Amino acid sequence: MRFIPTELKDAHIIELEPREDNRGFFARVWAKDEFAEHGLVDRVVQMNLSYNRLAGTLRGMHFQHAPYAETKLVRCIRGAIYDVIIDLRPDSPTYKRWIGVTLTAANRLALYVPEGFAHGFQTLEDDTEVFYQVSQYYTPSAEGGVRYDDPAFGIEWPLPVTEMSEKDKRWPLFNG
Amino acid sequence: MRFIPTELKDAHIIELEPREDNRGFFARVWAKDEFAEHGLVDRVVQMNLSYNRLAGTLRGMHFQHAPYAETKLVRCIRGAIYDVIIDLRPDSPTYKRWIGVTLTAANRLALYVPEGFAHGFQTLEDDTEVFYQVSQYYTPSAEGGVRYDDPAFGIEWPLPVTEMSEKDKRWPLFNG
Repeated sequence: MRFIPTELKDAHIIELEPREDNRGFFARVWAKDEFAEHGLVDRVVQMNLSYNRLAGTLRGMHFQHAPYAETKLVRCIRGAIYDVIIDLRPDSPTYKRWIGVTLTAANRLALYVPEGFAHGFQTLEDDTEVFYQVSQYYTPSAEGGVRYDDPAFGIEWPLPVTEMSEKDKRWPLFNG
Repeated sequence: MRFIPTELKDAHIIELEPREDNRGFFARVWAKDEFAEHGLVDRVVQMNLSYNRLAGTLRGMHFQHAPYAETKLVRCIRGAIYDVIIDLRPDSPTYKRWIGVTLTAANRLALYVPEGFAHGFQTLEDDTEVFYQVSQYYTPSAEGGVRYDDPAFGIEWPLPVTEMSEKDKRWPLFNG
């Protein structure tokens, strides 16, 4: 695995290093020790799958309040997504900045989302599946969100939104 | 998640319980606490991806010797495999018995492989990807294997073998 820093402090893109032979290839996609060596959170308690029927589906922007803040490792195992994170840590040099990374079943990239970031994605193809591992158990009472179209961040989404939950449409505007 | 016992003691099939809405669905695919509650090993230290070009590719049958014995949770995220495990625990009531389970990107089943089992699979389609999580770090010196066609087990593979490693062709015959 290659750990590629992003413009946002502590967030990384993980690229596979496949070993090829006549059968195909083998690659490590996560290893507790390597994540710890790179200073990333190495705890995993849950893994989730999100299936999305239509291109343009948007889920986000989500986070968990402390002390239930979580790190996520996000990958797309079918189709493609534009994966977006926002740094919501007031003491961070990249506070309130966002980045988007295209994760696809073909490029096999993963995005490591540190604690204190909001996370969301938009599907770029129909029938897209997102697989992500999480460092904390989900605690409904700690759930938080910011609006995908909040002018405080100005996220540029690649497609018109086709599907979204009512909950995600109604997150309050940010006033941090 | 539903934990479905198999004919082999301690081995389980994990079936997802998707929650559907207008966007698609969400499903938990692993949770440390739920695995522990069902008496399964809840430790994960590594996750791997195996890509296979051709239908008929066979990888197996692999295990790790104690004290490096590992549990695996195997899923197919693209294409389809026939996933096979053999119970190699001399004190087990199902010692030397094998089962095969068809895991596909469409049925989203996972197979939980306990410690002391040999594991392998044959791809049923071209371009098949297998994602599996492991409870122990890989220790090359602890690597063991049995032959996919060992008459001691009589595994019935669904397809003629198209690709296989030299190492897998040469595991010794079993004399347990």
